[in-house]
Amino acid sequence: MAAIQDMLNQSQIIRPDGRTVDDLRPVKITRGWTDVPEGSVLIECGNTRVMCTATFTSTVPRWRKESGLGWVTAEYSMLPRATSDRTDRESVRGKIGGRTHEISRLIGRCLRGVVDMKALGEHQIQIDCDVLQADGGTRTASITGAYVALADALSWAEKNHRIRNAKKVLKEQVSAVSVGVIDGTPMLDLPYVEDSKAMTDMNVAMTGSGAFIEIQGTAEHRPFNREELGTLLDLATKGNKALQKAQRQALEQAL
Amino acid sequence: MAAIQDMLNQSQIIRPDGRTVDDLRPVKITRGWTDVPEGSVLIECGNTRVMCTATFTSTVPRWRKESGLGWVTAEYSMLPRATSDRTDRESVRGKIGGRTHEISRLIGRCLRGVVDMKALGEHQIQIDCDVLQADGGTRTASITGAYVALADALSWAEKNHRIRNAKKVLKEQVSAVSVGVIDGTPMLDLPYVEDSKAMTDMNVAMTGSGAFIEIQGTAEHRPFNREELGTLLDLATKGNKALQKAQRQALEQAL
Amino acid sequence: MAAIQDMLNQSQIIRPDGRTVDDLRPVKITRGWTDVPEGSVLIECGNTRVMCTATFTSTVPRWRKESGLGWVTAEYSMLPRATSDRTDRESVRGKIGGRTHEISRLIGRCLRGVVDMKALGEHQIQIDCDVLQADGGTRTASITGAYVALADALSWAEKNHRIRNAKKVLKEQVSAVSVGVIDGTPMLDLPYVEDSKAMTDMNVAMTGSGAFIEIQGTAEHRPFNREELGTLLDLATKGNKALQKAQRQALEQAL
Amino acid sequence: MAAIQDMLNQSQIIRPDGRTVDDLRPVKITRGWTDVPEGSVLIECGNTRVMCTATFTSTVPRWRKESGLGWVTAEYSMLPRATSDRTDRESVRGKIGGRTHEISRLIGRCLRGVVDMKALGEHQIQIDCDVLQADGGTRTASITGAYVALADALSWAEKNHRIRNAKKVLKEQVSAVSVGVIDGTPMLDLPYVEDSKAMTDMNVAMTGSGAFIEIQGTAEHRPFNREELGTLLDLATKGNKALQKAQRQALEQAL
Amino acid sequence: MAAIQDMLNQSQIIRPDGRTVDDLRPVKITRGWTDVPEGSVLIECGNTRVMCTATFTSTVPRWRKESGLGWVTAEYSMLPRATSDRTDRESVRGKIGGRTHEISRLIGRCLRGVVDMKALGEHQIQIDCDVLQADGGTRTASITGAYVALADALSWAEKNHRIRNAKKVLKEQVSAVSVGVIDGTPMLDLPYVEDSKAMTDMNVAMTGSGAFIEIQGTAEHRPFNREELGTLLDLATKGNKALQKAQRQALEQAL
Amino acid sequence: MAAIQDMLNQSQIIRPDGRTVDDLRPVKITRGWTDVPEGSVLIECGNTRVMCTATFTSTVPRWRKESGLGWVTAEYSMLPRATSDRTDRESVRGKIGGRTHEISRLIGRCLRGVVDMKALGEHQIQIDCDVLQADGGTRTASITGAYVALADALSWAEKNHRIRNAKKVLKEQVSAVSVGVIDGTPMLDLPYVEDSKAMTDMNVAMTGSGAFIEIQGTAEHRPFNREELGTLLDLATKGNKALQKAQRQALEQAL
Repeated sequence: MAAIQDMLNQSQIIRPDGRTVDDLRPVKITRGWTDVPEGSVLIECGNTRVMCTATFTSTVPRWRKESGLGWVTAEYSMLPRATSDRTDRESVRGKIGGRTHEISRLIGRCLRGVVDMKALGEHQIQIDCDVLQADGGTRTASITGAYVALADALSWAEKNHRIRNAKKVLKEQVSAVSVGVIDGTPMLDLPYVEDSKAMTDMNVAMTGSGAFIEIQGTAEHRPFNREELGTLLDLATKGNKALQKAQRQALEQAL
Repeated sequence: MAAIQDMLNQSQIIRPDGRTVDDLRPVKITRGWTDVPEGSVLIECGNTRVMCTATFTSTVPRWRKESGLGWVTAEYSMLPRATSDRTDRESVRGKIGGRTHEISRLIGRCLRGVVDMKALGEHQIQIDCDVLQADGGTRTASITGAYVALADALSWAEKNHRIRNAKKVLKEQVSAVSVGVIDGTPMLDLPYVEDSKAMTDMNVAMTGSGAFIEIQGTAEHRPFNREELGTLLDLATKGNKALQKAQRQALEQAL
Repeated sequence: MAAIQDMLNQSQIIRPDGRTVDDLRPVKITRGWTDVPEGSVLIECGNTRVMCTATFTSTVPRWRKESGLGWVTAEYSMLPRATSDRTDRESVRGKIGGRTHEISRLIGRCLRGVVDMKALGEHQIQIDCDVLQADGGTRTASITGAYVALADALSWAEKNHRIRNAKKVLKEQVSAVSVGVIDGTPMLDLPYVEDSKAMTDMNVAMTGSGAFIEIQGTAEHRPFNREELGTLLDLATKGNKALQKAQRQALEQAL
Repeated sequence: MAAIQDMLNQSQIIRPDGRTVDDLRPVKITRGWTDVPEGSVLIECGNTRVMCTATFTSTVPRWRKESGLGWVTAEYSMLPRATSDRTDRESVRGKIGGRTHEISRLIGRCLRGVVDMKALGEHQIQIDCDVLQADGGTRTASITGAYVALADALSWAEKNHRIRNAKKVLKEQVSAVSVGVIDGTPMLDLPYVEDSKAMTDMNVAMTGSGAFIEIQGTAEHRPFNREELGTLLDLATKGNKALQKAQRQALEQAL
Repeated sequence: MAAIQDMLNQSQIIRPDGRTVDDLRPVKITRGWTDVPEGSVLIECGNTRVMCTATFTSTVPRWRKESGLGWVTAEYSMLPRATSDRTDRESVRGKIGGRTHEISRLIGRCLRGVVDMKALGEHQIQIDCDVLQADGGTRTASITGAYVALADALSWAEKNHRIRNAKKVLKEQVSAVSVGVIDGTPMLDLPYVEDSKAMTDMNVAMTGSGAFIEIQGTAEHRPFNREELGTLLDLATKGNKALQKAQRQALEQAL
Repeated sequence: MAAIQDMLNQSQIIRPDGRTVDDLRPVKITRGWTDVPEGSVLIECGNTRVMCTATFTSTVPRWRKESGLGWVTAEYSMLPRATSDRTDRESVRGKIGGRTHEISRLIGRCLRGVVDMKALGEHQIQIDCDVLQADGGTRTASITGAYVALADALSWAEKNHRIRNAKKVLKEQVSAVSVGVIDGTPMLDLPYVEDSKAMTDMNVAMTGSGAFIEIQGTAEHRPFNREELGTLLDLATKGNKALQKAQRQALEQAL
């Protein structure tokens, strides 16, 4: 496709951290990062570092009771000094900000998109994504890391006879990556320095089979057209494939 | 395109309210719906009814001061009996829920996407979207209605010598519409009954020139592929064109 | 009575909106204003516009359980741009203000004053009064409108076999009106411009048979004596009679 | 008047605590009850005991600045075991209840009704009424006690050269008392046991010259007519005269 | 011990209120200070005055249910004008401050330290300590007073057949006192004027048999060594003995 | 001393994790653990892992302005799955719990105890201690780790010419350790399994010169006497010496 060709040409561009436009930052996924959670993962995407835990509990929220169905929910939070300026704690301010709410809901939807709630049965998995260091892409790193924590929590649940078959519950792989248009050029996996000057900014969550779970593209600074959208989705597809490979490699190792 | 052809075939399907898959619900935009706000619009999309007001103020948030730039922000809320079951007031619960936060932020981003902040100067426009009756598509109706309220508030500001040129501030038209996949069929402008069983649900905000300001597609129930995405965007393009015509017709009349 | 005679003399005074001191503003009561609530009324008293809904539910608050008695409660709220300056949302501030609390409690008491809780049985009716536009007298308009919404909700409940006899539950009519002393002259039904300079301000809720349900008179700016009180109550009686006629006319029409 | 005659006949009734219908409970006003506040009063009305303090500060709220006018505000609160069952602290629940808000506002209005804001100048007086023991009439006892604390705070301010003339600031005396209809009989100054079964309940704040500052009558259980209102106001007038005598006696003593 | 000898020498120092370094302020404990609580005590330590109530209830917190064990908890609060400058109410601020939390927890721990939870059975005692006037040592006065209120509540419970044996439940006496180092000299029972300039500040809760329930020593301004610690504990031991004598004398009198 | 001799005898006891009663758990202090904060330390004490950051800012709280003095404050928090059961986020609950408040205040006091506020000048250092994994002693580990982060932040400030002399600001070293009595035996550095059954639990913060900054001993389950206190302080002294050696070794290495 022409879009891909353009993209390849743009690949000549070298970004501040030495990457081409379609390069992912180095990804590192550490399982069993803390001892007690059913799933505990540290994911590092470049300088972005997120601790993702999955808590398996045998109760579902009240509105879900006696439905025979499970539930997956997520909470995202930033530590005060994850960012270059200190951010006040939401616990101290007494309320959760809009950005936190928005991201928590996004993570929850993406993971629910790959879980078979009937196979899970009336159990709940609570995902916690705490950003230890933020350098762009914290919400997509959270999704990618949380998938691995979720997989571990389900293996734990199978091993402990809480569910029958972890594989049946987790229907598909899911990962997410950010793409954006910087100075007119579509690029993959934006660190903070690029993200803050992106005209268009898009987060794309995809399954292992290449379908979309969530697309969130926003263009506060310059609207984007259908062709740019195509290029961005090509980049996201490439990035998500690589992230899913990293997820599989991490999950293949013994815990 | 094949996608469009499929869509036309699917158009044979008649929906519960008598529409074909690419039909919009009847839209009615009433300007000057209340007396005091600088912009005050009632938008009705089928049974969904949203009151949108735009408040022009001569101060910007603290972090924006001495930047020479303006700001546009939005708050969305549902009246307790907009819905079939009564929803508790967020003021009574003492906190704003995640859904409200998410939608308020979406509306704000879409409107900022068509405003030239330099031309606006250090003024702020606060958009309030209060849902009087909800039947699906409240967030997209809010965006479509808020655009008209914003246009009126800017005309007011020009007439009252607060800004020089309202047209320069409002660079483009913006409207939004929901699309979704119901039982495998992509459809335009979902009422609640369809929305609640959609496999994929997407909100698309577009400018008058047909570019995207925001795409939010979510597939909690079944991932969607690139082709389906294409059909959904075709439908959204058609819907937004019709909504933008309604916006222009409303704005052409004397207030 | 001398008080009435004085009042008639004062009637020569023509107020800014062309009314005499004992004239009510035009009242308009629209039933079935939105589709889903059991009772839904838009009341307009001059430029004041309040949406009143009544929600019938089959549960009572915990402290009322197994008492055989029902309950009626009310919540009042102003939309941000009901007023000439935008008021911050109480949901955003995270707490309900004293004025809102005070008015919500007043509305609830007035409606409970005409409901037979035994005949209602263990059901609850929640009244929501949302002020779309405020021009004085929003709390009294809320009471007057809420009565009609309550009557409709009880008819709905009778028709749907939730209660036996709506008429038995609603023992009496209730309406409310404001009166006040402006520059020494007692006047009926104060719009904002008069209310803000009233020396004494009184809200009077009365039954169809002319008895008092609630009297709230306050004299921050100049105390009032027994004679003035008499004149104010005469005015309120006249105003409430007219409002009750409007309520009856509205309820006589088919919904 | 016939009303008074009826009342006298009813006076034959002996109430549970031995009083006739127009008897006040014993009142005791202790000035200087704590050491540091500018005004500090313990008022005891029967078993009801309220600590009232008045704090004089040299700043007014922001919205009052540069107006040349002062401000008086009040906060009412109940200690957890003022009541027979323990009431949860509002600080622990994280929000102020409607009843507290309503009463705080009432106290503030009554005191502002007797203060000349111009003579006060840009100073603020904050009244705190904390109920140590509640046996009915806590809000009216608060007003009566707060007046004395306010008077002491103004004397303090005059002595400390913060204001010129305390007497000019405090234009009039103010006190308040509750009246109500019990089993058809109007009575003065209701303790909890009577208050809880009153058909009509009214709080009446009056000035030293016998005019009304605030009338709040509510009839959740049985509406009242004009004649009953007359009798209730006669009782309130008698009660307030006695309370004002007690205030004067307390203020005549050296602090 | 040398430490004691030093202390005696220092006893020559006369403090602003005429006391020697090892003198306690006058203590006064009034039982049955209000009528309704199961235990109600006013404790006065110098100018510090705290109202302590103990509420006996027949339910325990949820997490304690079906354990056969009781629970004791405490809440501490300051009235706004207990202090020389008015402190904003925590109910108005919508949250409890750190200091309040810290002290409430301290009081609860100290009382739990002398209660046999098994003998108490599944009942709860809620202690409320409300500071009417603050002049240093409010937390230790609260503990000392709360012990007496607790004892009264247990006697009440025994008399009302809620528990078998009050003496078995209350294993020991407990009291607390503050000590500190002022200008290098250890002193007992600090009023505000001394407390605010203390280099080291220590609160010591002790049982009737002279053992420690809680030691909280803090040295923001100058660390303290082992020897000073010894002297401070000697002083605290002396102070607590005197306080416990006052507790016993109060409890010996008929209520 | 006899106390020490007893302790040595008790040293024969081997604890569940193989330690003697006066053994510290392995300590590991990693400086520069994240990139952006002025001081960033990961401290590991056995399985307890706390991330401590120090933020240097050039403004002090309002009440400290124009005093010429600096300020140090601290906030402590636990990630939801630091514990074996998931703890709800305080941001979600909308308020900070008593335990969190108590510990945050303790950490702040201990660090202020070793900082010369005049030498710091009008700058503020905010300490954040986020517990990634909790296995007892999280508050003492926080203090010990925060000291190192604070030292790094001051070095940063000196290097960046914000302060003159980091060494002058940081007057002394400070560390903290927990001690407790388990089944009658005093022990050093309790992990969760021991802490939860301790009769007495004490946290001791000490300076490099062996003086006390803070002693917090609590005996909910069995009061302790003077001799036990002596042994506990001996153990704490030993533990703090070892921790301070670890701090110095960490700080000696190049960052």
